[in-house]
Order: sequence, then C-alpha cells, then structure tokens
Amino acid sequence: MTATINVRNPRTGKNDYTITPPSASELALRCTQLREAQVAWQENGVEYRISVLQKWKEAATRHKTSLQEALIHDTGRKWESILEADLLFSSIDRWCRLGREFFTEQASKPSHVPFIEIRQDVQPFPLVGVISPWNFPLLLSLIDAIPALMAGCAVIVKPSEITPRFVKPMMQIIEEVPELASVLVYVEGAGETGGTIIQNVDLVCFTGSVATGRHVYKAAADRFIPAFLELGGKDAALVFEGANLDHATSSLLWGSTANAGQSCLSVERIYVQQSIYTDFLEQLTAKAQKLSFCYPDIDTGKIGPIISEKQVAIINDHLHDALQKGAQILTGTGQCEEHGGGMWCFPTVLTNVNHNMKIMTEETFGPILPVMPFQDENEAVAFANGTIFGLSGAVFAKSHEEAHRIGLRMHCGAISLNESALTAIIHEGEKQSFKASGIGGTRMGAAALKRFVRQRTFLTKVQNVVSPWWY
Amino acid sequence: MTATINVRNPRTGKNDYTITPPSASELALRCTQLREAQVAWQENGVEYRISVLQKWKEAATRHKTSLQEALIHDTGRKWESILEADLLFSSIDRWCRLGREFFTEQASKPSHVPFIEIRQDVQPFPLVGVISPWNFPLLLSLIDAIPALMAGCAVIVKPSEITPRFVKPMMQIIEEVPELASVLVYVEGAGETGGTIIQNVDLVCFTGSVATGRHVYKAAADRFIPAFLELGGKDAALVFEGANLDHATSSLLWGSTANAGQSCLSVERIYVQQSIYTDFLEQLTAKAQKLSFCYPDIDTGKIGPIISEKQVAIINDHLHDALQKGAQILTGTGQCEEHGGGMWCFPTVLTNVNHNMKIMTEETFGPILPVMPFQDENEAVAFANGTIFGLSGAVFAKSHEEAHRIGLRMHCGAISLNESALTAIIHEGEKQSFKASGIGGTRMGAAALKRFVRQRTFLTKVQNVVSPWWY
Repeated sequence: MTATINVRNPRTGKNDYTITPPSASELALRCTQLREAQVAWQENGVEYRISVLQKWKEAATRHKTSLQEALIHDTGRKWESILEADLLFSSIDRWCRLGREFFTEQASKPSHVPFIEIRQDVQPFPLVGVISPWNFPLLLSLIDAIPALMAGCAVIVKPSEITPRFVKPMMQIIEEVPELASVLVYVEGAGETGGTIIQNVDLVCFTGSVATGRHVYKAAADRFIPAFLELGGKDAALVFEGANLDHATSSLLWGSTANAGQSCLSVERIYVQQSIYTDFLEQLTAKAQKLSFCYPDIDTGKIGPIISEKQVAIINDHLHDALQKGAQILTGTGQCEEHGGGMWCFPTVLTNVNHNMKIMTEETFGPILPVMPFQDENEAVAFANGTIFGLSGAVFAKSHEEAHRIGLRMHCGAISLNESALTAIIHEGEKQSFKASGIGGTRMGAAALKRFVRQRTFLTKVQNVVSPWWY
Repeated sequence: MTATINVRNPRTGKNDYTITPPSASELALRCTQLREAQVAWQENGVEYRISVLQKWKEAATRHKTSLQEALIHDTGRKWESILEADLLFSSIDRWCRLGREFFTEQASKPSHVPFIEIRQDVQPFPLVGVISPWNFPLLLSLIDAIPALMAGCAVIVKPSEITPRFVKPMMQIIEEVPELASVLVYVEGAGETGGTIIQNVDLVCFTGSVATGRHVYKAAADRFIPAFLELGGKDAALVFEGANLDHATSSLLWGSTANAGQSCLSVERIYVQQSIYTDFLEQLTAKAQKLSFCYPDIDTGKIGPIISEKQVAIINDHLHDALQKGAQILTGTGQCEEHGGGMWCFPTVLTNVNHNMKIMTEETFGPILPVMPFQDENEAVAFANGTIFGLSGAVFAKSHEEAHRIGLRMHCGAISLNESALTAIIHEGEKQSFKASGIGGTRMGAAALKRFVRQRTFLTKVQNVVSPWWY
C-alpha cells in the first residue's frame, strides 16, 4: 500500500498537496538503518548529542522561513505557526541543558546499602516511534522526539497526514546535519503507517484522540513495548467570587480560543459562581465579540480556520446538540462558517448548558465557551471532576493560595491558578494525565527524559558480609 | 463461578487444602469498598500510613509462627520460608523510611521558570491490583503492595492458587489492624480471579511468566490502565580467566540452586572462558554433588521440592531435550525424582550444551547449571545477550572494575559483579527489565513508589510577564 494521500488546504478547502506513504517494507528498512545508527549515537555520549542538536538548531535557523511557511500552509494560521517554529529552537536548548543534568545526576546515584556498592546507568530504548497530531504539527512532533534523541534513542516520527507540509523542509534541515539524519527520520502517512511504525519500534509515543490512543495502547501491548499516550481533554475552569473578573475573562477567552480551540489543553468548560455569573458572562461576551477571524487577511485577527474537516463536523454536531437541548448562544452563529472555501468557527459563548450536552462532556476542540453557574465549592469541584477526562484545569479565586487549595481537589495533571492553560507555554513541572487523558510518565519537566531509558544496576559486594540467604 | 480449587502439597503430592475464589460480583463489591476506604487512607497522610504499617508489623510479629508454618506448608521448604517471612518486617521498615523521604522530597521540587511558581504533588492511583506467583508467595505478594500502600493506594492482592495457605494467617494479621484491613485485601483464586481483578483496579502489577504477563498487558490496555510486569528470565553468568574460581563456583551454585532454582533471577546459563573451563567444571561439580534434598527431614539439606507440578513437567522436558541433543550430565539423575509423593530435582551440572537446546533458551526454573565454554569477551557477551529475556546477569572477572566494564555490555537490568543474583537480597538500585522480561518503571529502589502515583503540577504566574502566545 503506497497509495497517494490528498491533503486539503484549510484556508481554501481544496486539495493542493499530496503525500505518498512508504510501503511497510520500506519503513521496516528505515527502522533497521535507524537501529544500526543508534549504536554510535548512544555510545558517543551526551556531549556529542548536544553538539549535534546544536547543529540542528543552526540548520533550522537557516531554513526558518521555509519551515514557518510550510506550517502556515498546513494550518492556515500564521501567528501560532511562527511561535511554533520558534519553539524548535528553545526546545533544543532546553533539552541540551536538561540532558546534561540528567546524565550527570544518573552517574552519581548514592547507594543505601553499606556493604554493597551500587552503580547505575541508563540504556536508551534503541528506536522510539512518535505519532503526532495536526493541531500543533511541528511542536507535537518534537515534544517527545527531542528528549528521546537526547536520551540516546533513534527516532522515527510520523506527523498527521492532515498537516504534512512541514515535513519536507524539516527533512531538508535534518539532512544538513548528517550525524542527525542517521538517527532522526520523519515519514509521511496516515493511520496505516502509524500502525506499521508500532510494529517496528521499541517504544511508542502518541499524541491524539482518546479513540486512537486506545488502539495504540493495544497495539503496543500486542508487541510488548511501552506506550506513552497524551490524549484528549475537556478541561474545566472554575471561577469563584472574589476573582479578578476582568483578568479571568481575558485569560479564559485566550485559554478557550487560542489556536481556534484546537488544543488538548484548551479550556472547554467554564463554571462560574452564581453570585458573579451575570457579571462574568457580560464581560466575557463583550470580549469574545471583539475577536475576529484571520480572514481574508491572514495577518489580522486572532482566530484561524478549523484545520481538520472531521473536526468541523464534530464542532457542528456539539453546537447543534447543545442548541437543540436548550443552550443559549451569546456570540457566534452556532456553527462553523465557510469563508473562501475554509471552515471557521467564531468564539462561541453558550449559557443554559448542562451535562446532558456533548458540548459539556465530549472533547469539542473548537473555540467554544460554554458557561454554567455553580452554587458552592463542592458543586464546582464535582462539576470539574465529573468527566472521563483528566488532562488539566484552571481555578480563579480571590488569591493564589485559595486557588491552590481548591485546585488540589481537581483530578487532573496540571492546574493553572488564576490563569488558564499555562501548560501551553510552560513545559516544566512534572505532570501526568488522569483517567482517559493518557497513560505513562510525565512528558513535562526533566523527568520526561526518563521515559526513553531503561535503568541498569551493577552490584558489587565490597565488604565480606554473609547473607542468611547464602550457602 | 465460585468452584472450589484443590491445592497440592509439594512434599506429599496430595491435595490437602482448598480455596474458594470470590465470585466476580463479590470481588467487585470488595473493590468498591477498598476505593471508599482509600480516600481517607490518602488524606490522612504519609505519617498516618507509616503508623498503620508499623501496627501491621507488630501484628505480624505476634503471628509470625503461623505465617511461617503456612509458607512452609505452601512451598515444602523451610529455611527459605523463614527468611521470606522475616522480609515482611524489614520491608515494612524500609518502605516507611523511603515513603517519608519520597513525600518530603515531592513537596520541595524546585521551579526552573523565573516568573512562574511551580508547585507539585502526587496523587495515588486509588486501587492497585497485585497478581503474584508461587515461588516466593509472601515476598512477591508484598514487593509491590507495600510501596503502593505507602503511596496512598488501596491494594487487592491475589497470590498464586498453587501456594495460597499463607493467605489465611496474613488476613488474620491484617484484620488485627482495622485501619489497614480497609485498604489491603488478599483474595484467593486462579487466573480467572486475576482477570476479574484487572477489570476492577486502576493499575495492575504482575509477577510471573512471560506468557501470562503478555495477557495481563493486553487486558490492561483493553481497560486503559497502567501495567507493571516483572516476568521471566534466563540469566547468564560469565566467568573469565583471572576470576576467583573457588568463589565463583560457590556463588554460582547458590545463584542457580537457591529455592531449587525457582526464582526469576536464578542463574540459568553459565559461560566460562575456555582456558579455565575444565577447572571450573571440576570445582562446580564437586560442590554440587555435596548438596542434598531437604528430605526426608525438612531441617536438613538445601534443596527443597519443586513446588508446582507444571514446573516439574517443564524441567523434565528441558532436561530430556538437552540430553537427547547430546548434553552430558555431571550431577543429578537427568529428571525430577519422586520422594514421598513430592517431586525433587537434584542440582544438575550439564556440559556439551548449545543454543539449540531449551535448557539454554527457555526459562527452566529449576536447579540446573548448564555450562558452556567461550573463546573471548565478544563471544561471551554475544552468548549472554542472545536471548529473548533481559532480567539480570552476572560477571566474574579478575577485578570488580573488569567485571563492571564487561557488565556494561549486557542487555539486562541488574548485573552482579563477582557475585550471583545479588538482587535476591538487595532491593536498592533502580533497574528495569529488558526485552521480554518486563514492562514499566523500576520496582527496586525508592523510585519504585513513583509507579503508584500520578504527578500534578500547579502553575501560578507570580510576576507580571507577557507571553507572545497570549492575547
């Protein structure tokens, strides 16, 4: 199967790009080559890998414009694409620092047993597969790949077939650093190619939907390899009496509509204390109305197109379901709009929502702000936790301490206090997904690197002791 | 299905005990009760949990004799059972210390971002399931259960149906500490009960065979819960010219035949440098011949019965296969022997072995010492790594440094240097299983506790900075 796949342009709705996935045997061959090259990549040590990653950064600097342009073409939005490309640079530097720290620390683990000398080291998984989604195509193709490379793994990345245009400039950048090109390969393809990757690697990282994530986990279990999964969310924000409403409404508007809501850590449910509900809604609605599409001029506005056609259908379905069940719409048209062939969704503030609506229970992945009142803290916490997801959340309260106290009651991995969706910009702090939102160790913080190695222990008896077990 | 299961006595071969597994609905109800009790167990904090675990230790001290007797009855061997019961006490103390350290450290993680305050905490998985094997029935039922309890989880344990007699005294001990009894339950049953447990818990730990471990992983993936698996091994020992042969032969004899070889970390393959091969074999054979069964008097000898009837068939099959293919037998009778109704296997030194024999490739789990010569270090390392397993290994060389240098080339999680199977007595040092020997984070060392929690991060903006992502 090497059938060509057509790629739709999110601004025109037209197919204007194609990719041709490798055959299963081509892919297997590439994986064999990656494994061969990984041996030296590991043996040359962390300082060598840092120097190669720095060369990668230099090459990317030379091709920054073509990378940005491909990302803009892929996603139909500009400012997010520029920032996303910038993250490549800061992410390489960050992982070079954390990688050096990790391997230094690893070499000096203390022993707790007086008569036994314990030495430890780490062995990278030879070949890591990364299967990444379309919402932040570059960022999410690298978020696991860079720490895996630092750990000493070879990496094969398959970005989404919906946004594959950045792959060519990225491969060109990588090819300018031959030491890197032998251990980092991007391949184009859809689900079938992702499945073939799982058949050929020693560890798989997947970012995407809950449904596909479950398949990936099962496929990994069939092959008896570890899987690290970062899946969907239905992040709740709680707004309490005493919170700064001007700040809360601005922050939540951003947290719900940045990248047109196409982010796993978007705020998708807003619960507001009854006493401030009307004020909150008024301010939020006024601010939401001021937003505009990046259309026709891509350089204006904040809200880009909905990138995936399938997502348009989901957003429309959730809006339709909510409106049918009595939701009231305060901004937007109640459905995605077509402009110039692309599909766009205006920031949509909804009230009169309840937990029988898909908009309050399933991941929407659009710039929708359903707002619902709560009576007291217990109800707020129950609302926030009453979901199959557990990715992240937010609390706005009269003080950071109060927000923290309430945040401690939320069943999710990252909680922004008096701010929304801070994990979009902060990648420190170890966190894990709760419930259906994921499986496996933290991908944030320095410990993210640990996912890509197995630890070894070397034990030597340094004093002549006798164990009762010995004979 | 609540059919009674008959339990065979490994010393008499007679069924002299029965267990009745709970029905699926009874088990589900117990899991619901455990979840309910877990809330307070977690909220009361680590010092509370330490105090309860200390009460457990006190209760176990009062019932030490009945626990030991049940273990002796379960396994047919005495000295290992006494040491195993003692490990309960040291293990509780060790985890109380490590648990306190873990939660203290967790509270003081530094932030790397100047303008964002990062606070972290950990949330235990509410209910952990432990499915444990028959070779060290008590020890392996607790190796994951105690750190899980320290982490704040409730735990349900299903020991093997082959050695279930210690469960009753253990439950009696637990019931004397009501605070513990509400969060720690042992249930009796076979594979079906294990399957039902996976359907009811938030995380599963399994110790046992590769074949069953693969099923457990798939079942965990179906339920979208994490699985930590410690499976079989075919541990290799390498003996180089210059090693102390007297010490190496004594150590390897112990490492291969302790608990009659019924240990995942038993040495199952011995590779010896050609120049010392004859000397080594001579010394090993002389020492092996001096061992004797703990029969008829359980207080004599070192070698207990083969506990599981199924294992007897596997050992006989491997021996038969090896002898048919030309292996030479230097000690033992070439098969398990029946004495008084129990099945016993004499420490069996084999030569003329090769890698077409099951005895050199599959897990035997008996006191068998197949010895094969190697020419040089590269061949030795290739032999050691030429296996589907990757649990542990050993190197004997002229110095600790030389043994360490060679050990670094072995693909497994723990390597004993100038000693065998040190992980049997040392539980420090973080290590992971390679290849088919397991999946998931280390169960050794303080980090073993981390498997039972999810990390949360709380992010607060403490300076008025502006991110380019915000609008």
